[in-house]
Amino acid sequence: MTAPESESEAQTGPDPAFLDLLKWTADGLIPAIVQDAEGGEVLMMAWMDRPAVVDTLRTGQTHFYSRSRKLSWHKGGTSGHVQHVEEIRVDCDGDVLLIRARQVGGACHEGYRSCFFRKVEADGRLGATGAPVFDPRAVYGAGS
Amino acid sequence: MTAPESESEAQTGPDPAFLDLLKWTADGLIPAIVQDAEGGEVLMMAWMDRPAVVDTLRTGQTHFYSRSRKLSWHKGGTSGHVQHVEEIRVDCDGDVLLIRARQVGGACHEGYRSCFFRKVEADGRLGATGAPVFDPRAVYGAGS
Repeated sequence: MTAPESESEAQTGPDPAFLDLLKWTADGLIPAIVQDAEGGEVLMMAWMDRPAVVDTLRTGQTHFYSRSRKLSWHKGGTSGHVQHVEEIRVDCDGDVLLIRARQVGGACHEGYRSCFFRKVEADGRLGATGAPVFDPRAVYGAGS
Repeated sequence: MTAPESESEAQTGPDPAFLDLLKWTADGLIPAIVQDAEGGEVLMMAWMDRPAVVDTLRTGQTHFYSRSRKLSWHKGGTSGHVQHVEEIRVDCDGDVLLIRARQVGGACHEGYRSCFFRKVEADGRLGATGAPVFDPRAVYGAGS
């Protein structure tokens, strides 16, 4: 697998002056929605801590904070399915980020382009929409 | 101002069998992203408790839970700027909802179509994008 870091040029992000305007949770986190910059599809929502926002600005690729693993991670660092950031927006209350990005491969660890691949059907159950864009077993290993 | 409830016919939502599959926070909440069903613009993110999800299904219009006011509220109940739900999606982890809806007026209490009307500029500051679609003082009163 190709390490995506080696393909992308080092980027210097903007000075993160806006960070001090954000409202973080008591745990120092902020939710970040990622939207496909091209098709407009909402791909995922995850949490960022301050270092993850700074790393996202610095590298031009999304970084998040895993609440279960209690560490920052580079989206696509294992799979190669990185997100190239086009624009970062902040909501009116300053407590949610919207990141418009170009998604390589799929955002979802289950192989789908978007994590929101299930819809509520008329009978109140969940049904899958669309088809996976990659095989998660091939990307993450058979244990996934 | 016209009460939006009186305009919409009573709707019977699907049986919310999927509710038991959702992962709620310790406070019994789940984040809900609202996306414009027509243009694809991400309009807002807010929190729902279980009654808010049920009311959203039952009425076909979004309801949320205000963490500051500690109560459920009908989006657009004051302003008339309701959101007519077209589809509800659930993410792979079952801990985020994506609601595709037809927005009447604007989603943002500051008068913009989307709450994400500010973008991070190259200098690290926030700049407004676009223009308001309504005057919040006229809709919510001069104190807003």
